[in-house]
Amino acid sequence: MTAPDAGSPFAALQNDTFLRACMRQATDHTPVWLMRQAGRYLPEYRATRAKAGSFMGLATNTDYATEVTLQPLERYPLDAAILFSDILTIPDAMGLGLSFAIGEGPKFAHPVRDEAAVQQLRVPDMDKLRYVFDAVTSIRKALHGRVPLIGFSGSPWTLACYMVEGAGSDDYRLVKTMMYARPDLMHHMLAINADAVAAYLNAQIDAGAQAVMIFDSWGGVLADGAFQQFSLAYTARVLAQLRRRHDGAVIPRIVFTKGGGLWLPEMGRLDCEVLGLDWTVNLGQARRMVGGAVGGPGKALQGNIDPNVLFAQPEQIQAEVRRVLESFGPPHQAVAGDPDQTGPTHVFNLGHGISQHTPPENVAALVDAVHAVSRQLRA
Amino acid sequence: MTAPDAGSPFAALQNDTFLRACMRQATDHTPVWLMRQAGRYLPEYRATRAKAGSFMGLATNTDYATEVTLQPLERYPLDAAILFSDILTIPDAMGLGLSFAIGEGPKFAHPVRDEAAVQQLRVPDMDKLRYVFDAVTSIRKALHGRVPLIGFSGSPWTLACYMVEGAGSDDYRLVKTMMYARPDLMHHMLAINADAVAAYLNAQIDAGAQAVMIFDSWGGVLADGAFQQFSLAYTARVLAQLRRRHDGAVIPRIVFTKGGGLWLPEMGRLDCEVLGLDWTVNLGQARRMVGGAVGGPGKALQGNIDPNVLFAQPEQIQAEVRRVLESFGPPHQAVAGDPDQTGPTHVFNLGHGISQHTPPENVAALVDAVHAVSRQLRA
Repeated sequence: MTAPDAGSPFAALQNDTFLRACMRQATDHTPVWLMRQAGRYLPEYRATRAKAGSFMGLATNTDYATEVTLQPLERYPLDAAILFSDILTIPDAMGLGLSFAIGEGPKFAHPVRDEAAVQQLRVPDMDKLRYVFDAVTSIRKALHGRVPLIGFSGSPWTLACYMVEGAGSDDYRLVKTMMYARPDLMHHMLAINADAVAAYLNAQIDAGAQAVMIFDSWGGVLADGAFQQFSLAYTARVLAQLRRRHDGAVIPRIVFTKGGGLWLPEMGRLDCEVLGLDWTVNLGQARRMVGGAVGGPGKALQGNIDPNVLFAQPEQIQAEVRRVLESFGPPHQAVAGDPDQTGPTHVFNLGHGISQHTPPENVAALVDAVHAVSRQLRA
Repeated sequence: MTAPDAGSPFAALQNDTFLRACMRQATDHTPVWLMRQAGRYLPEYRATRAKAGSFMGLATNTDYATEVTLQPLERYPLDAAILFSDILTIPDAMGLGLSFAIGEGPKFAHPVRDEAAVQQLRVPDMDKLRYVFDAVTSIRKALHGRVPLIGFSGSPWTLACYMVEGAGSDDYRLVKTMMYARPDLMHHMLAINADAVAAYLNAQIDAGAQAVMIFDSWGGVLADGAFQQFSLAYTARVLAQLRRRHDGAVIPRIVFTKGGGLWLPEMGRLDCEVLGLDWTVNLGQARRMVGGAVGGPGKALQGNIDPNVLFAQPEQIQAEVRRVLESFGPPHQAVAGDPDQTGPTHVFNLGHGISQHTPPENVAALVDAVHAVSRQLRA
């Protein structure tokens, strides 16, 4: 998996721990990366953003996006990089007019709230998202094979939440009103979103992404029944369209539904390699449900420490890291003669994005603890 | 259960459907009430609030609190009334200085953020909450036995969230920082909160509340492990101190943890009669986990329709009501000769408080559908 095709523009991968764990192969330590690891908690990120002038100025500039993606890797021995971008690039390319007001979240100038607006939606021309694919290639080159690069997208449902609400929401009233009152419109929008997400992720894979992640950040706000119909089904529609291999390597697919722990048995049937979990889920129970046996099918699990643990002292962070690693249970060990045999594996991560208020030195304590303790647990 | 003691100041109960369902006894229809049923979506509520001048002006005035509690019962054939009050009355009585700015949520002038502030906390003198108990007695009298009256409190953890954050929060960073960094302080605060909640609910029972509900509105933001230690254990500490009977009647105890579906097996071991569920939970699965068999122990279940269903059309509301009733499964039917035999029962409710934007006529469609469809399902 680590040797690119002859003629690949990219360097050979030096640390494949993350990709191996995604494929449920044994590793020497539990790999770790952090959602939103390139972000406001880092002073060097804030400096680059100040140069860029705005969030979208940062995200749309290849050099800046490359710079900030690599910043956390300079500080911490993380096992993966993730493209610096926003989950709302697709609706922006659809013409909804994305902006970020200072101190507020994202906002769309043209939210999708009636039948006419829904009927106008199309899968956007991927050329409008060229800046993302250019960033992927630039980052991949800049990484020089240090660690793999993860591409990502919001899920069809999560994009629909922002597209209808026009901004963040605490009750999802507008998007759910459309869902309950006009399910036909919602299904139409979700089908378009799914095809757009699939094209977007495939283009990221073509550009050099070595794994892809679908963020269903708002799947967990749905009622049982509605989640399966309006979120899970369209995540499945994306997965069915994704490239499985590129440049000689398998491309693992990660699905993360925040607040989706109750639907883990159904998510276990998704055609993907990894399921991301938030901190409400017990990793040991999740492993028993969907992690599979050695040599059998199953999902790798990614997560799931509470990002607020990073506000405690280093010793407490270490203790919580140990607790999360131990909750997963005994690591999958390589079988002599068959190091690529599959079994339950764990990719350490937060259960949600890192807080902008996090002290950077505490991130070092967490990453080091994951590596040290997970090696101990294998000894 | 419906006949008060000789000498009771209150009228005999005419509709005991809610209390019977709480005690897992068969009923002719599924009882229904709605969290925050007395509230801003009703124009008559807004008129009373305008007279009162402020939210706390409304909550602390016995006549106004009585008036607004009864308003939804004048419109809809609800099977229970719930005290009109706020979940933050206890911290206010502790001296934290509660206020409600217009267009914003609750705010404390003196949040509890350090060791000195935690050490100063005491179970408040219940005399400072006399206005609540007076309202309970006044409402109970004004009800004339039409339906039972539910008293309530925030859970120890949910109170702690507001006490530390000082207001609502979207990341619970301050309260979780204290929890992870100074668990000793958090446990101290939670023990005081639990004893205060127990005293508060017992005083409501003494004043006339015929059931009590603990709102663990923010239990679901905790990590697995932390929930059990910092929320569930203190809810249990409250329950252990509550009066079981008053004025000749059993007092059912309801516990609602928003976002707590993953911990249902553990909540099933709480010493309470009813568990409230949000819309992410499948009622049939919950019934199999904690609903118990006919004649055996178990919990009644309360919930769990998405309040946003109320923004659809009446026919769609009816269809969603039927879906929720059917997800619970066949209703518990009275056994000839033993109408009080216990079995799995369902109290219909929303999965969270009703939205202020709800069209009042849609609430009528929901309540009527619960009664009509649940009678059909028993026929």
